[in-house]
Amino acid sequence: MLYEINEKAIRLENQGKKIIRLNLGDPDLATPTEIVEAAYAAMKAGKTKYSSAYGEEKLRQKLAKIHGVKAENVVITPGSKWGVFATLYLMMKAGGNIIIPTPYWTAYDLMAKSLGAQTRLLRTEMEDGWKVDLGKLEAMIDKDTKMIIINNPNNPTSKVMDSKTLDGIVEIANKKGVTILSDEVYGPISFVKTKSILEYDGNSTHVLSNGFSKMFTMTGWRIGYIIANKPLIDNITKLNQITINNVPVFIQEAALKGLEMQKNLTKTIEKEYEERAKIACKTLAKAGLSFTEPEAPFYVFPKRKGLDSEKFTLDLLDKGVAVAPGTSFGDYREHFRISLTAPREEIKVGLDKISEALK
Amino acid sequence: MLYEINEKAIRLENQGKKIIRLNLGDPDLATPTEIVEAAYAAMKAGKTKYSSAYGEEKLRQKLAKIHGVKAENVVITPGSKWGVFATLYLMMKAGGNIIIPTPYWTAYDLMAKSLGAQTRLLRTEMEDGWKVDLGKLEAMIDKDTKMIIINNPNNPTSKVMDSKTLDGIVEIANKKGVTILSDEVYGPISFVKTKSILEYDGNSTHVLSNGFSKMFTMTGWRIGYIIANKPLIDNITKLNQITINNVPVFIQEAALKGLEMQKNLTKTIEKEYEERAKIACKTLAKAGLSFTEPEAPFYVFPKRKGLDSEKFTLDLLDKGVAVAPGTSFGDYREHFRISLTAPREEIKVGLDKISEALK
Repeated sequence: MLYEINEKAIRLENQGKKIIRLNLGDPDLATPTEIVEAAYAAMKAGKTKYSSAYGEEKLRQKLAKIHGVKAENVVITPGSKWGVFATLYLMMKAGGNIIIPTPYWTAYDLMAKSLGAQTRLLRTEMEDGWKVDLGKLEAMIDKDTKMIIINNPNNPTSKVMDSKTLDGIVEIANKKGVTILSDEVYGPISFVKTKSILEYDGNSTHVLSNGFSKMFTMTGWRIGYIIANKPLIDNITKLNQITINNVPVFIQEAALKGLEMQKNLTKTIEKEYEERAKIACKTLAKAGLSFTEPEAPFYVFPKRKGLDSEKFTLDLLDKGVAVAPGTSFGDYREHFRISLTAPREEIKVGLDKISEALK
Repeated sequence: MLYEINEKAIRLENQGKKIIRLNLGDPDLATPTEIVEAAYAAMKAGKTKYSSAYGEEKLRQKLAKIHGVKAENVVITPGSKWGVFATLYLMMKAGGNIIIPTPYWTAYDLMAKSLGAQTRLLRTEMEDGWKVDLGKLEAMIDKDTKMIIINNPNNPTSKVMDSKTLDGIVEIANKKGVTILSDEVYGPISFVKTKSILEYDGNSTHVLSNGFSKMFTMTGWRIGYIIANKPLIDNITKLNQITINNVPVFIQEAALKGLEMQKNLTKTIEKEYEERAKIACKTLAKAGLSFTEPEAPFYVFPKRKGLDSEKFTLDLLDKGVAVAPGTSFGDYREHFRISLTAPREEIKVGLDKISEALK
């Protein structure tokens, strides 16, 4: 229902209605000027030709250095979404199943289904702090299980996985010979320390997916990357060659500029979202909602006992606020997702209207 | 061997050797300044956000008008390659076979194989003017045949299909219920009139693939489009949503700018390539090679009886000229492909070296 809500919001806006958009993970902040200028300079310098399906060597080197791997372990993708899809396409060809903890980003499930792979959903609960039950995870794995997809920090809960749980997941995966695909797109702007899948030494079967969208407010630029063992990187590159070919070089230069400025940029972005999260938590607690406090941008995923979030979301939209129902992230009808991707003043008005609607 | 040659060329260049690059379809001309400026203006205007997986409405409208279809029949893709892949992905899911006349663009075959679809190659010969034998085509179709892929004008021959042959292919396809995917990426800059698959009225099962790469020297920008019936367009859009999401809006604005200037731009490009083709034909004829004269950019596909084009190509590369062996386009060992995508002076030197090597 995520797309339905978005389309209705657009329809209402086209009718001239003001809608406060808290339904998508697309930040209101602009892409930093320096990044735009880097892209323009590269275009003018003629970096508008076909290029490597691996990505530009300079960018791969830079990312390799940041993550402590070799450039041969990095491939640049048109958005992190493409990196996830390409990994699934290659790993699930021969069939099998994928385990995904919920609540989850819907795209994982849609990709798996499109590719004819089975998904097994491992439910986590707000009341347990969204913790993955390791016993349940292990019991769910069978001989056809090829992958576990984790999203850390998580969309929609903005919860960072505690390192003990992550250790446990990796241990089980290693024992059972299952690949972990760790989507860490919110990691670089997380409010708390997050442990990356790359920190597990001596194991080269797991896969990191990341992107520049959230980190540098570059959502619409479509650039991300995969870090994995060389054979998988080579295979993704071969798939790139017959599909997307390459990410425009001027966009790669823009992303590289972002990385050079990373420290300052992400600090600013992180701080703004942490402030917004504080504002949201205060109002939502007053409105009697339960939730876990966000540990990363952009979301809060509150719960109200007995709520029908689909009905609530549609009614709320008529009152001028767009959010996403919990059912878009798995079987979470009593939850809804608020995306703090609007200016603070708008968020405040939105939160007040949400509180009002819940009375 | 196309990629092997290219990699060897890059290796030699990195060793400081001057290589005349006539091996790729990547024009030496720069993207027109107006297109670069349109992209920059759009970036600065904040067109850097997530957007529709269908593509921007303005661009779809413009393309619909040019092709005499509705905007709902158009989807914007990151390169025409992605459009072809997406079409194959959706149409070949349930298995079946695809008929492809040769010589062909290798990517078709690689995509089909990656997707687990069978390909049936329909050989055409230079001596017959690269004409498709309609009798053979019809005999090749069986109950599992889902598609015919034609590339018109053709890479590597630069031959435009005569309209009688195209009529015949469409008639057979319609009778047998087979979809034609017509890749017309060289069409807008063709030297002679070409007939589009869209000119066949009353049939909505066929698919047009096109792009901006060749038309406006935008190869590295990665933007193309598919025109087809609404259900296929909707399905490609759904696939876009879980893979590439959207083509950056500022790139779509740049392409739109190109379309607004199309008449002047394509005239200039067409004229330059026609002149290059004339120069090439003259020298190649003198060198005793047989070929059909190019009717579109960028290629000539000459033949020398008894030639081992793989050996020839590798030897030629050591002499400082990169071309592509005929075996990269099907079973055409006696042919090689020259790409006229270098400045005229370089082409002349390259052609002289080719003539010398053939002595």
